[in-house]
Amino acid sequence: MHIVCPQKLLLNSISIVQKSVSTKTTLPILRGIYIEATSNQLKIVGTDLEIGIENIIEAEVIEEGATVIDARLFSDIIRKLPDSDISIKLLENNQVNIKCLTADFSIVCHNPEDYPELPQINDFNFYKLPHELFRNMIRQTVFATSQDESRPILTGVLLEIEDSSLNMVALDGYRLALRKGKVEANTSNKAVIPARTLSELARIIETDNEEPIEICLTDNHALFITGSTKLISRLLEGELINYNQILPKEFKSRVRVKTKALYNSIERASLLAREGKNNLVKFIINDDKMTITSNSELGKVYEELAIILEGDDIEIAFNSKYFMDALKVFDDDEVYLDFTTNISPGIIKPVENENYIYLVLPVRVSSN
Amino acid sequence: MHIVCPQKLLLNSISIVQKSVSTKTTLPILRGIYIEATSNQLKIVGTDLEIGIENIIEAEVIEEGATVIDARLFSDIIRKLPDSDISIKLLENNQVNIKCLTADFSIVCHNPEDYPELPQINDFNFYKLPHELFRNMIRQTVFATSQDESRPILTGVLLEIEDSSLNMVALDGYRLALRKGKVEANTSNKAVIPARTLSELARIIETDNEEPIEICLTDNHALFITGSTKLISRLLEGELINYNQILPKEFKSRVRVKTKALYNSIERASLLAREGKNNLVKFIINDDKMTITSNSELGKVYEELAIILEGDDIEIAFNSKYFMDALKVFDDDEVYLDFTTNISPGIIKPVENENYIYLVLPVRVSSN
Repeated sequence: MHIVCPQKLLLNSISIVQKSVSTKTTLPILRGIYIEATSNQLKIVGTDLEIGIENIIEAEVIEEGATVIDARLFSDIIRKLPDSDISIKLLENNQVNIKCLTADFSIVCHNPEDYPELPQINDFNFYKLPHELFRNMIRQTVFATSQDESRPILTGVLLEIEDSSLNMVALDGYRLALRKGKVEANTSNKAVIPARTLSELARIIETDNEEPIEICLTDNHALFITGSTKLISRLLEGELINYNQILPKEFKSRVRVKTKALYNSIERASLLAREGKNNLVKFIINDDKMTITSNSELGKVYEELAIILEGDDIEIAFNSKYFMDALKVFDDDEVYLDFTTNISPGIIKPVENENYIYLVLPVRVSSN
Repeated sequence: MHIVCPQKLLLNSISIVQKSVSTKTTLPILRGIYIEATSNQLKIVGTDLEIGIENIIEAEVIEEGATVIDARLFSDIIRKLPDSDISIKLLENNQVNIKCLTADFSIVCHNPEDYPELPQINDFNFYKLPHELFRNMIRQTVFATSQDESRPILTGVLLEIEDSSLNMVALDGYRLALRKGKVEANTSNKAVIPARTLSELARIIETDNEEPIEICLTDNHALFITGSTKLISRLLEGELINYNQILPKEFKSRVRVKTKALYNSIERASLLAREGKNNLVKFIINDDKMTITSNSELGKVYEELAIILEGDDIEIAFNSKYFMDALKVFDDDEVYLDFTTNISPGIIKPVENENYIYLVLPVRVSSN
């Protein structure tokens, strides 16, 4: 194998692929990046057997072939080389030579035949949706997945496609995020994608790409194609509970409030709450006023917000983190908070549209 | 105590003072920030008993008085409050009330009488030098101090004032950095300042301040005044060895080389060196060429640089970290590397001036 390609192009490609390479793996070959030169292109691959990423760049191929180079060393070397053409040439004795201007590296490489093949996906039934939309959908759901590996299904996000609508749902037992979007589709499908896959994908997605992102779901895998990059991920096994059953159909109190002001007030109140248990903040909703209070041994805080209330007064308490996590991903100036009783779930949704619903369980407190 | 002042001004002041507050102290009162309102100003103080910082801001003083507030909570609250006027009022029962628009905090505070007084310095013999110069002098020396607390004197930087010249010297047993500057002075003096003091000072220094920084040295303390901030630090006890004895008076090989290119080459070579011991890189200096090589079980690297050599060819090896640390703080396009033998210290100095000398010990290697 012998190729020549520009430093910037190669570095960008390695940076994308490296997101799927684990430094903690016990299989040395998986700490490597697989590169393969064919005709006039270079294929660059990384995988941790859960996620695989493949990126293709143009290169001058002097001799075809493949090798596997330690990902960290490879990316460090390419990053530190000057913005010029880089030659990569396979030598004998499991060595690869990397040259750029006056820099000349010879480093140990692995046998490419030992590198695991990414799963082949031969289904050509692709769903297409705009990059920016998909990235927003990930951002608005993935944070609500569980970190607790004891219930793996809750560490993923459900993708549900039906009648050209795409719903993404995450829940962790304390809250639920549901984002609705439109997709080009003529078949129904659903799958639970690991949160990590979606987080890495959100980082790779080129938001300035006018072509849609393409998604293909098989029984065990999801394939995402964005620009010159393919990401293949295992799916989580099992089914998420029926989220429609959980979403309340009505409310007794509807609060209309400015998103940013509410976030800031809860954030300040949580400065005292964090010292106690549960990051507890209490909302006292009363006519045109919402008071947010919190206290701990450090002191106490009152925050007052102007609101528009439709329905009954209510006092209800929440873990401030669960509220702030959600308010952070709202792009809307105003939100509705819908409550029924102080022991039933609260809802946050945009005032302007029906795209997004966030449900959060309250914390029971003794009234005082 | 009751004062009103703008959020931005107060936050800036707290951020400066907080650098001297340790969160690890076993004395709870030292986790606090002391604030004192007198006539129309607010004095804000932090200390860990090694370093003390005092900053003064203008404030509307409704009632004079003092209190001590937990530094972390205080700074978090002020940071999160909106850009508006903040009222701070001492309540009864060791509580202080902080109000800003609709936010209302009441937090526990400490008795100001328990707060340690900063050392009083009544010497009015101040040295003055420009902020920018002093910050550069710190930057070019402080990195060469020792991290090893077993020889405390090496964890500091020597300030030596004589005949209106100020020398700053740091050494750790492997390398030495000497920066020369001019100062307004009519007395001689010297003191060893803890590296941490200088690092914090470099962060506080307002480089856009046209007034000079003022320095006063007593037997046990150094006082630095920059704008509205005073920093008082303990000095290290003992004397640094006579650095003039260590500096070689002559050389057999003088290499003239581009600073940035040399840095980049050593940095790349060190990618392989870091896996071995000593971060070892070897220089082969030969006519108009300098080859930098390094190898480890991962592979080997050659870097070639164009140089101008005056004197003998030489092969010499160094810990790459000690070279890179120094090259990073050179502002000069070109440097001289002066060598005598491959077991005597190497020198790096600017081509254009005599302000700075960096000495580094080589690593002995078996020739191969």
